[in-house]
Amino acid sequence: MLTPVTSSKEIIVLEEESVTLAKGFKAGGMYCGIKRKKLDLGYIVSEVPATTAGVYTTNIFQAAPLLVTQESIAKENKIQAILVNSGNANACTGEQGLLDAFEMQKEFACELGIKEHLVAVTSTGVIGELLPMDKLKSGINQILDAEYEAEDNFKQAILTTDTCIKQMAVQVKIDGKTVSIGGTAKGSGMIHPNMATMLGFVTTDANIAHDDLLYALKDITNQTFNMITVDGDTSTNDMVLVLANGMAENEQLTKNHPDWDVFKEGLKLVCESLAKKIAKDGEGATKLIEVQVNGAFSTDAARAVGKAIISSNLVKTAIYGTDPNWGRIVSAIGYSGIPVEPNAIKVAIGPFLVFEDGLPCPIVEADVKEYLELETIQIFVELNQGDYSATAWGCDLTYDYVKINASYRT
Amino acid sequence: MLTPVTSSKEIIVLEEESVTLAKGFKAGGMYCGIKRKKLDLGYIVSEVPATTAGVYTTNIFQAAPLLVTQESIAKENKIQAILVNSGNANACTGEQGLLDAFEMQKEFACELGIKEHLVAVTSTGVIGELLPMDKLKSGINQILDAEYEAEDNFKQAILTTDTCIKQMAVQVKIDGKTVSIGGTAKGSGMIHPNMATMLGFVTTDANIAHDDLLYALKDITNQTFNMITVDGDTSTNDMVLVLANGMAENEQLTKNHPDWDVFKEGLKLVCESLAKKIAKDGEGATKLIEVQVNGAFSTDAARAVGKAIISSNLVKTAIYGTDPNWGRIVSAIGYSGIPVEPNAIKVAIGPFLVFEDGLPCPIVEADVKEYLELETIQIFVELNQGDYSATAWGCDLTYDYVKINASYRT
Repeated sequence: MLTPVTSSKEIIVLEEESVTLAKGFKAGGMYCGIKRKKLDLGYIVSEVPATTAGVYTTNIFQAAPLLVTQESIAKENKIQAILVNSGNANACTGEQGLLDAFEMQKEFACELGIKEHLVAVTSTGVIGELLPMDKLKSGINQILDAEYEAEDNFKQAILTTDTCIKQMAVQVKIDGKTVSIGGTAKGSGMIHPNMATMLGFVTTDANIAHDDLLYALKDITNQTFNMITVDGDTSTNDMVLVLANGMAENEQLTKNHPDWDVFKEGLKLVCESLAKKIAKDGEGATKLIEVQVNGAFSTDAARAVGKAIISSNLVKTAIYGTDPNWGRIVSAIGYSGIPVEPNAIKVAIGPFLVFEDGLPCPIVEADVKEYLELETIQIFVELNQGDYSATAWGCDLTYDYVKINASYRT
Repeated sequence: MLTPVTSSKEIIVLEEESVTLAKGFKAGGMYCGIKRKKLDLGYIVSEVPATTAGVYTTNIFQAAPLLVTQESIAKENKIQAILVNSGNANACTGEQGLLDAFEMQKEFACELGIKEHLVAVTSTGVIGELLPMDKLKSGINQILDAEYEAEDNFKQAILTTDTCIKQMAVQVKIDGKTVSIGGTAKGSGMIHPNMATMLGFVTTDANIAHDDLLYALKDITNQTFNMITVDGDTSTNDMVLVLANGMAENEQLTKNHPDWDVFKEGLKLVCESLAKKIAKDGEGATKLIEVQVNGAFSTDAARAVGKAIISSNLVKTAIYGTDPNWGRIVSAIGYSGIPVEPNAIKVAIGPFLVFEDGLPCPIVEADVKEYLELETIQIFVELNQGDYSATAWGCDLTYDYVKINASYRT
């Protein structure tokens, strides 16, 4: 079964809410002239400095804004505002790129009347071009005007080749107080485990200790954002930030707080939902693919097998073509690097067991083809080697992926 | 510069020759009914048992014929014949698949009047279906008839989605005797480093010690067949075999023989040429891409960077679209896992330097676009960290790749 976005008794799911559900946050966005037409500059601002945890791309070519943002957050583990532009990644832009990122930060801090290091900056788009600083500064000078304030504007302004906004929010009770956690994300190409071309922003009004928030974010990221892939390319720019401004006035959350689990579960629901929405909106994708691996001898082994399957161009094209070519799934398991036992493995495509005891299972091909017409396709793998599991998400590989990427810039 | 297939003074290159150039080898092929129409069964036979070295897929799901062939070669490090079918991989076929592979071997040994373990068997095609043994046996019973004997038939019979045959041969002098080395290969999808869906067969009349032949093959494979990628999928079936029957009557070659280097260079020329032809004929490909990485701190580091670039779907689609999107090349270097120094790296697309000192170089985009219209595209990377180099080959990612793989079986 596909893991549904369930609401346990303690978690209220609000699919239509996002980063301004939590108390004390506002957001906005505008067109400042970087892209041809669409919104390209957005902000989130908290009334008070918020405890902040971040995870960042593992790509050695980290873009300038990531360097600035990491350095700034490190000062007191808090920020109060995020400024994002799309259309230009400010990556591979050298010393000038770094100066531009600092200037972006300074300009927005000045508009807000707060310290520079309380502003996180981030960029997404084409690599290797300098930011058009005139346009950007002119935008920053206006963006706090009331006419641009709207959560929806922010969600639009962070998109690149995305075809839709991604959002999710939950509410949980901590010490009897309502705590909201809401997020939005972008990213549909260059998506691969370990912070690929993706931006994720989550806000919460929880009062929480920084170290524990970072611990939760890292653990959850490994299960959600790092388990999606669109094309195997890990980008230079991407990050997920969680801002917790404490305005729900709960006792400070730590791992020892009795309501820790429900908070973490709520944060995970938000991150998982956003991750799946990114995978589903992969460039050119027509389907979300979910791979569940069970019976592995370790979590890492389960993840490696899941990632090998979800990353296989041959599996992705077969699913696009509604071809029940389970041999490609088995082959991907075989080169995942995990010492599996071929004859112990079971593979199912949706409800159809296709491989067991080292042999194909009898299937009615037309039935499996019909299943593969659905918008969400599940692949189940049982390794029979242990008790560890993982889930990975991706999308099919289509003509449109090639089309989009053969001419992204031109 | 693209490494040309050069003939040094001691090496004569014969582009139109293949596995029957060396003394004492014959080959043939026929249609036996596994595919719809095209030739699907082929053989190579040596007059005498030939010293044989093989390299095999690293996929854990090794297909039945690989198990049979490895076990057989291990008996005395010699074989006298190879039998290949295409259209059905005999992979993931369990105990019955193993029995079928043994039976294939036995039937052909019987026709030849030689010991079973002197016959190598191999299969390529769809995974998970049992071989149609009646058709196959009927084919084996006729295939040695004079009407099917033709090197060209063999080269055709091993193909699957390939659009052309691949061949290459050289002649070198060993002890003043002419030694021929000729090969053919197939494989155009599921091609990735470490023996991907690929079959390679090389014959030579050299007299050579087994251990030294295996040493040379492994070393050369790491520089050639293992440095190509089409789609990142490593298959269940594939192998490269080199048969050396000694009929050139040279003194036995070993690493200490004065002509060892020229033999090894000749074998490398054959393998590199076949590897590049496989990459160029990648499924749906319109271009051969060659990535040369220099200045790495180790050979493995150079290879890892080359493979990351050549495997990037985003680089591959950009080249298909003649888009000089060097940012994707830089990004791939950054996630290759090698600790490179961003500001020390230079990247060139053909003759155009595009990235240096952490910054894009001024280019006339139209000129680079014109270069990208060529059939062979070269990417040069200078890491400035050491003296090690590697070259990797691949192809662009096109609509036709998706088309071919969305409906391979149906």
